[in-house]
Amino acid sequence: MSGEAAFIAALRAIATSPAARGLADDAAVLEIGGSRLVLTMDAIVEGVHFLPHDPPDTVAWKLVATNVSDLAAKGARPCGCLLTYPLADDTAWNTAFLAGLQQACEHFVIPLLGGDTVRQPEGSARSFALVALGEPEPNVAVPSRTGASAGDIVWVSNGIGDAGIGLSILRGESGARPADRDALIAAYRRPQPSPDLGVALAPHVSAMMDVSDGLLIDLKRLAAASNLAALIDLDAVPLSQAFVDTVGNDREARLRAASAGDDYCLLLTAPPTAQASLEAAAARCGATLHRVGKLAEGHGLTILFAGEPIAPPPSLGFEH
Amino acid sequence: MSGEAAFIAALRAIATSPAARGLADDAAVLEIGGSRLVLTMDAIVEGVHFLPHDPPDTVAWKLVATNVSDLAAKGARPCGCLLTYPLADDTAWNTAFLAGLQQACEHFVIPLLGGDTVRQPEGSARSFALVALGEPEPNVAVPSRTGASAGDIVWVSNGIGDAGIGLSILRGESGARPADRDALIAAYRRPQPSPDLGVALAPHVSAMMDVSDGLLIDLKRLAAASNLAALIDLDAVPLSQAFVDTVGNDREARLRAASAGDDYCLLLTAPPTAQASLEAAAARCGATLHRVGKLAEGHGLTILFAGEPIAPPPSLGFEH
Repeated sequence: MSGEAAFIAALRAIATSPAARGLADDAAVLEIGGSRLVLTMDAIVEGVHFLPHDPPDTVAWKLVATNVSDLAAKGARPCGCLLTYPLADDTAWNTAFLAGLQQACEHFVIPLLGGDTVRQPEGSARSFALVALGEPEPNVAVPSRTGASAGDIVWVSNGIGDAGIGLSILRGESGARPADRDALIAAYRRPQPSPDLGVALAPHVSAMMDVSDGLLIDLKRLAAASNLAALIDLDAVPLSQAFVDTVGNDREARLRAASAGDDYCLLLTAPPTAQASLEAAAARCGATLHRVGKLAEGHGLTILFAGEPIAPPPSLGFEH
Repeated sequence: MSGEAAFIAALRAIATSPAARGLADDAAVLEIGGSRLVLTMDAIVEGVHFLPHDPPDTVAWKLVATNVSDLAAKGARPCGCLLTYPLADDTAWNTAFLAGLQQACEHFVIPLLGGDTVRQPEGSARSFALVALGEPEPNVAVPSRTGASAGDIVWVSNGIGDAGIGLSILRGESGARPADRDALIAAYRRPQPSPDLGVALAPHVSAMMDVSDGLLIDLKRLAAASNLAALIDLDAVPLSQAFVDTVGNDREARLRAASAGDDYCLLLTAPPTAQASLEAAAARCGATLHRVGKLAEGHGLTILFAGEPIAPPPSLGFEH
């Protein structure tokens, strides 16, 4: 068991409230009066979740977007956020961060409600925490990772792999044509989760989460949480033209897309009978869903390419 | 204007939701369905808010207690918290922190609902963020800093100055008798806010906040938020026997108590007619309130000692 897994197992022994969902989900669901509130808290750390030279406005965007992505995956509409901000004397950095924060809060319609500014000692990596609150639609269950059944179809919304290549480009490990380069870097720095899409899909799914660490690892986690085996068809993973231009379209390229992190799109399961409802709901939001696999009795993840099972890549995604 | 003041002014321009209370209060108040939720988020950073050698269980306690203190000051009963935890490879530290977290969550009856574990790069100061949620009593206004009127009496609950001396002792700047030493260090490391007391007082106050940065500076802030002048009678500031044993009881000692931070007790105002109700409410919680001053038209803070105004100390408290 990794250090984090052991730590979370110990935390789980403390977090016994049903609202905590056993710390096995992307968010907590608290009953307040007659209403439900979805709560998520994601932090980002310089040098770990963003690069020291990322523009500060994009750091703010990413902080808000990663939290909104969790709300979207729980079918919740954002209703507020609170921020912990490490205040340094770099006024230009602070000002640019605030511009990005305002832009993100407006874009995702998530009011800033409060938070805390703190000093960090010299030499510490900047560390930001955000908590985001959202409201699900009345009478719609808040999707978890645990609700899938054998026979359910696995769907993803767009966006697999682009952010990972964007990060590679920023690290100087990949090249790309200028137009593709901008799109791929934007995918890394400015994730575009859609609460509208999450809210529209929630009534029709059996399980839903966001893809943040890589499609393969996140699907494996969803299947494990539902006590099922997952099968994914690599050929069906949706790739952008920028991705194909830059990395290609073959088995290696597809494995790379499906094991890259930072996608912040939706991964969902539903019985085959829900297909028409899902596609109609996505279309109402101007989105397209892609059928990438299915769930079965058993456990583990099987990856198919050209109809045949293939060996998994050394890493299924980002493990932290 | 300090860097933090300028930053918060800029944040305020973003945080325009009424729930944010203009970022001028200790907490946000969000309407959810027919209910209200009080939200606060306080972070603590190694070397800034706690000492690198503080026992990890007390770091966890302090993180929870400082947030619960804000809920208490808003008359809210804790209903949940989420944690950002910087996970390092120091298993003994992590385990001790979790023991303190569990102890604090049980003591303050605040369920842990979720959060995030993050890696920090080598050499970064540990930085923890907690968001705490609370529910006020139905039909009781959530006290703000802005509601006081001229003529209102200023009250504090116990605990002024002890934590500041505890910090001094830990820094090797003060000595104390062994029994006093333990009590004063415990005041610094294990603040004891009381949501029961905050909930009991809330119906009777015109304004309420917690004392976290120093009684003088916090009273000055409350008065400023209410557009009033404050007068404080130093002789009336309640000092513990441990404080008196260690520092004394004279003007300098009293100024030191009233400008030390980390008290996490309650500072409240109410019209003179509320005295009996306040004292009865406190007594029901086994607490005693101390009448330390009053509010008047005007602005600024006047400090009285032996009935005469005295010059303010160089620092009224912790400014951050």
